[in-house]
Amino acid sequence: MGSRGRVTLQTIAREVGLSKYAVSRSLAGKSGVSEETRERIREMAVRLGYAKPAAQAGSTDIAVVFHDLDPVNSELYMQVQNGMQGEAQRLGMGLRVHWTHSARQLEDLARACAGLLLVGPHDREAIAAATATGIPIVRFGWIDPLEQADQITGTDHEAGQAVIQYLINLGHRSIAYVSGAPGYRGRRERFYGAREIAESHADVALHVMQFDEQGAFADAFHALKESGVRPTAFFCAHDGLALTVVSELLGQGYRIPDDVSVVGFGDFSPATQISPPLTTVRMEGQECGAVGLRLLLERIETPRRPGDPARRINIASRIIERRSAGPCKDMRISEDTAKPSR
Amino acid sequence: MGSRGRVTLQTIAREVGLSKYAVSRSLAGKSGVSEETRERIREMAVRLGYAKPAAQAGSTDIAVVFHDLDPVNSELYMQVQNGMQGEAQRLGMGLRVHWTHSARQLEDLARACAGLLLVGPHDREAIAAATATGIPIVRFGWIDPLEQADQITGTDHEAGQAVIQYLINLGHRSIAYVSGAPGYRGRRERFYGAREIAESHADVALHVMQFDEQGAFADAFHALKESGVRPTAFFCAHDGLALTVVSELLGQGYRIPDDVSVVGFGDFSPATQISPPLTTVRMEGQECGAVGLRLLLERIETPRRPGDPARRINIASRIIERRSAGPCKDMRISEDTAKPSR
Repeated sequence: MGSRGRVTLQTIAREVGLSKYAVSRSLAGKSGVSEETRERIREMAVRLGYAKPAAQAGSTDIAVVFHDLDPVNSELYMQVQNGMQGEAQRLGMGLRVHWTHSARQLEDLARACAGLLLVGPHDREAIAAATATGIPIVRFGWIDPLEQADQITGTDHEAGQAVIQYLINLGHRSIAYVSGAPGYRGRRERFYGAREIAESHADVALHVMQFDEQGAFADAFHALKESGVRPTAFFCAHDGLALTVVSELLGQGYRIPDDVSVVGFGDFSPATQISPPLTTVRMEGQECGAVGLRLLLERIETPRRPGDPARRINIASRIIERRSAGPCKDMRISEDTAKPSR
Repeated sequence: MGSRGRVTLQTIAREVGLSKYAVSRSLAGKSGVSEETRERIREMAVRLGYAKPAAQAGSTDIAVVFHDLDPVNSELYMQVQNGMQGEAQRLGMGLRVHWTHSARQLEDLARACAGLLLVGPHDREAIAAATATGIPIVRFGWIDPLEQADQITGTDHEAGQAVIQYLINLGHRSIAYVSGAPGYRGRRERFYGAREIAESHADVALHVMQFDEQGAFADAFHALKESGVRPTAFFCAHDGLALTVVSELLGQGYRIPDDVSVVGFGDFSPATQISPPLTTVRMEGQECGAVGLRLLLERIETPRRPGDPARRINIASRIIERRSAGPCKDMRISEDTAKPSR
């Protein structure tokens, strides 16, 4: 495919007599490979011209690569991009922004720049190949446990905890976590946080609603009610899901927040377009972008030495109280309970 | 008590007609107080001279305050202090280091410095009082979900995930999480991470061993075996617990790692003093200290405006493979499984 003579992970794998998978994991700094093997792979990569030592890198450009096939997060991506560009402007530097999901293009970009900001669910092999070039990379997306990669995220886990605590403080004891389609990592993280708070209260039940297609909420809700569960609050893993839940519930005659409360996540523009406006969690995308750019610059100026630990930076979200959540109808409000403002 | 005429949280609470608890939460930026009330409390605090606007602060000193009653973490604290001081020296600045658990002393220090690095389980009210002075504070210790406070930590949650994945890769399917005395937040975080990985494998069982006193391990282990559980691996929430587990198991005639594997957490000095030396997780205390100091300097130079989100920075730990953990006896090792180095 026009790549004859080009050094790839496969080339290195052949030379060192290991699988492409092992080479990819090793060059990406992942576990499962001994230090000796890791060193042998790294040397081969440099020898074959796959990885260039950082000092030889000619370019001083910084590239930003957004994954272009993730519509759910597009508004967040725009915030992140805005934050990066604002910070770059403040610092008097330019950014090359790309939107692609092509692994090949990502690797080529990595070879042609001094540092890379990588946003979204890029392919594992593509990330490994980019990482293997040796340039500093800051990732806005999920990583493996203890992976030695710098990462910027929001506070998904904490947000899950905080929203459930918020609903408990409002008197809710039967809460549904609306996770929608499975497979999104952030949604699972928020669930884990939510579960930790729920299970620390003996009288609180957290029910998970997971469904694949548009419109399946009604069926899932019906099934929940059939099993005797009457949630008084819904924590939706994403504002988009909250729109579905609010509109379906309104359609079924529920009053929001008088009968049931709904909390979203993201604080994207539909949050204030729907009525009642959504109580939700604001993701600080701009700050993520700005802080990520600064971390990348730090890593370019002072490259990580072997053994220097990677850094995760999480930008704290906050609950934005609007009108879709309120006190549980059944709740007898005691005066000494901390009450949220209305 | 010699504090007559001194403005305290109680004074502000009296003036605004709210509880000291509400004032404390509000000034610390916590939820449960409306924005109007928060503003009223803040104004009263400034009016009474409790909080001084940052611009009026005279001192340019940075104070570090370690909690002095937390022996379990003393080695980590020394690493953190070392990292802070090394970074301060590199930047040509001095640090005032204090070890105290006195809330009053903490508040006085906060009033006399330009920024505060706060390490350990300081009293909530004391932290609120220090925060209310308006100086930038970076906390090395636990915070509430979405609390608007800057925080530096390790990667406890990820470490729990990574260790269980590591043991699973070694073929272990019955794993005990030795959490020791309850109440330590980091231990719970590591458990949550461990549980998430364990429950994603249908054939893996994670058993929790929690006990209060020294020597109670034998009883807890006996009880576990009585219930028919035969763990082949122990993940200990702290290296100190791993010492107990290794020595008790050796005393009972188990061979390590031939019969059972033990993994610790912390990589403190006893980890290489015991035989076999511990496979454990290295906390990067020095890097935590250095990065925390730099974040504080950033916040002093560019104070957070209202609405600017707080930041969490987690320094990635790594698994240090020594000789206390190995393949599960029952495991048939397949060649294409990623194996850790020995």
